[in-house]
Amino acid sequence: MATINANFQKLAQNYLFAEVAQRIAAYTQAYPQRRVIRLGIGDVTQALPPVCVAALQAAAAQTGTQAGIRGYGPYEGYEFLREAIVQGDYAPLGVALLPDEIFVSDGCKSDMSNMLDLFAPDNRIGITDPVYPAYVDANVIQNGGLGIQYIPCGAADGFIPQPPTGQPLDIIYLCSPNNPTGVAMTTQQLAAWVRYARENDAVILYDGAYESYITQSELPRSIYQIPGAREVAIEFRSYSKAAGFTGLRCGYSVVPHALRRGGASLNRLFMRRQSARYNGAPYIVQRAAQALYTPDGRAQMQASINAYMANAATIREGLRGAGYTVFGGVNAPYVWLQTPGNIDSWAFFDQLLHTCAVAGTPGVGFGACGQGYLRLTGFGTAEDTQRAVRRMVTQL
Amino acid sequence: MATINANFQKLAQNYLFAEVAQRIAAYTQAYPQRRVIRLGIGDVTQALPPVCVAALQAAAAQTGTQAGIRGYGPYEGYEFLREAIVQGDYAPLGVALLPDEIFVSDGCKSDMSNMLDLFAPDNRIGITDPVYPAYVDANVIQNGGLGIQYIPCGAADGFIPQPPTGQPLDIIYLCSPNNPTGVAMTTQQLAAWVRYARENDAVILYDGAYESYITQSELPRSIYQIPGAREVAIEFRSYSKAAGFTGLRCGYSVVPHALRRGGASLNRLFMRRQSARYNGAPYIVQRAAQALYTPDGRAQMQASINAYMANAATIREGLRGAGYTVFGGVNAPYVWLQTPGNIDSWAFFDQLLHTCAVAGTPGVGFGACGQGYLRLTGFGTAEDTQRAVRRMVTQL
Repeated sequence: MATINANFQKLAQNYLFAEVAQRIAAYTQAYPQRRVIRLGIGDVTQALPPVCVAALQAAAAQTGTQAGIRGYGPYEGYEFLREAIVQGDYAPLGVALLPDEIFVSDGCKSDMSNMLDLFAPDNRIGITDPVYPAYVDANVIQNGGLGIQYIPCGAADGFIPQPPTGQPLDIIYLCSPNNPTGVAMTTQQLAAWVRYARENDAVILYDGAYESYITQSELPRSIYQIPGAREVAIEFRSYSKAAGFTGLRCGYSVVPHALRRGGASLNRLFMRRQSARYNGAPYIVQRAAQALYTPDGRAQMQASINAYMANAATIREGLRGAGYTVFGGVNAPYVWLQTPGNIDSWAFFDQLLHTCAVAGTPGVGFGACGQGYLRLTGFGTAEDTQRAVRRMVTQL
Repeated sequence: MATINANFQKLAQNYLFAEVAQRIAAYTQAYPQRRVIRLGIGDVTQALPPVCVAALQAAAAQTGTQAGIRGYGPYEGYEFLREAIVQGDYAPLGVALLPDEIFVSDGCKSDMSNMLDLFAPDNRIGITDPVYPAYVDANVIQNGGLGIQYIPCGAADGFIPQPPTGQPLDIIYLCSPNNPTGVAMTTQQLAAWVRYARENDAVILYDGAYESYITQSELPRSIYQIPGAREVAIEFRSYSKAAGFTGLRCGYSVVPHALRRGGASLNRLFMRRQSARYNGAPYIVQRAAQALYTPDGRAQMQASINAYMANAATIREGLRGAGYTVFGGVNAPYVWLQTPGNIDSWAFFDQLLHTCAVAGTPGVGFGACGQGYLRLTGFGTAEDTQRAVRRMVTQL
């Protein structure tokens, strides 16, 4: 008899964002005349950049000819894109990478989940709390999540995770700028983690999905800007939020050749993993990503980021002015709002939905330390964002 | 200290097709003036159908507008495509499915690999030999492959797998029309497996990636044409070979609501898995797949299949006429060739490459029972295929 993976019983019944969507759907059904402003899920609303549309259309036309059809691509992505990443994303930071240290994929969420294949099930896995829930879910499905040790982050530390002093961690998830809190780590804070990882032969899984939102130039944009990081860190990036690719699906992982454990190159292990379990991102999508590295592409991407960051400032300043306590919103599109009177996150989510027809994401959905918080995002339209803040300030 | 997944040491050093590519690359470097005809890897050479190009371009243009941008899609795929699949692929077979029994993805290889998340590691896993190597690799990476029991298939049975009589299997991989042998199961042969699965509460993972190549109308095109299959089978399909999507990446899985084990709905478990570890196939790619269900789309897809099947017939008849023993090539684009004098598969691969500059895929790469065979495919151009067969008939 086929037996099922019992770890599913250890998962929350719904993935957080699915639960949020269900509650909004129920509300919309009950009050069809009210339009809900969704400042919850971090999805884009700006159009895909014109350079990407043009690249997609040209690549589609090309593959519509027998001379131009592109079949199976390299498992690790096309060299034209990996070269653009090395030259466009890392060289300007003073970080020298080789194209074969880059693995292109359908996005960070898949990559960070798939990367778990490289590790034994008995590692101690440090996960910050609050945190993007997919890290935990992937670990629970993969091996029951037995090795997970939460790294609590709170207002006292400005929601910046600190290396623990107890039993050493083997694998550490860091996300900066952080989802959900919106705060970004400084060079010094990140260097403390690199030092910790080197001392303990740990591996850092560094989620840099929001690096393009960093506005303070002194902050590190890549973990490889910290000396010694390439022996201990895998970095994940995505075009989802930077360029409106949440529906187009493209991101990449950096697995440096210098990263070795137990005599094995993690770069080679991931290549073997991808060849066995994945077939690469679509050719036309990789062409769209490549187009972002042109001057026009850069400018269009930045315009979209600026629009979202203006929204984040609207939320941050509007709520702060009304007496709320907020974090983030300066180097990330996320604003992390303390609920009034520290009431329960889901209770505040429901109150906000029913009173203002505004949807956030309950902080407790990101972990126990997110209790009493709500995540709001700058991904709405400017009009919606202003309207939502006005409603919150006047109606709550 | 982070420890790595020791199961990687149990994998063949290279994924089969990566090894084939490396040997061809070495040959090409040594003999740059000779053009290798690749009848090895099953990759498409016909242009993407015009309906798909048009759908991609229209969808790209749409997402280039603020009103038309599509962000995160449903984890299980857009309803427009799942509805088209139900109506277009299954209703004509007399198989009634619901759209929420369909999960759209980036292809069969990922789906069949990801589906392993649903099962406990202690299942007995039946895998036919020879077989598409990704099944084995995914199991080995996931849990060491300890539960794998091979189901030997040989020329005596026409390479059709037979239900075993020993310890019952819990999970069974079946692929029909088969990759690599090119043979398709009859209703009676498939019904024997459905009966076996029902008697043993097993789950069949049915790889139907090549169903569109079936030419004999009496053969089943879906396992759900066998009564009782929906309680025991998950079916996987792909647009890769049917419509030249190997570089565009789209396929789907069918997980019927009737399929339950240990009190759980496998449909709901897979939905939970996908929401936690995947973000859906690109919107524009799903629009391209949808376009295949129009009359023009059907006709264009069929024209491409016909071209590949004409190649398969060229190989099959040409080699058979020259005295070779061949299987397949009637209901699948694959021809399974017994090596002359039953010599070693890799030795014959090298001989063919060096004598004729023709690349096949060594049968032993698909399993021990593939020793002494070579897989050839109809995916070349007509000219290349004719030239390759001529070389084989005259030069070997």
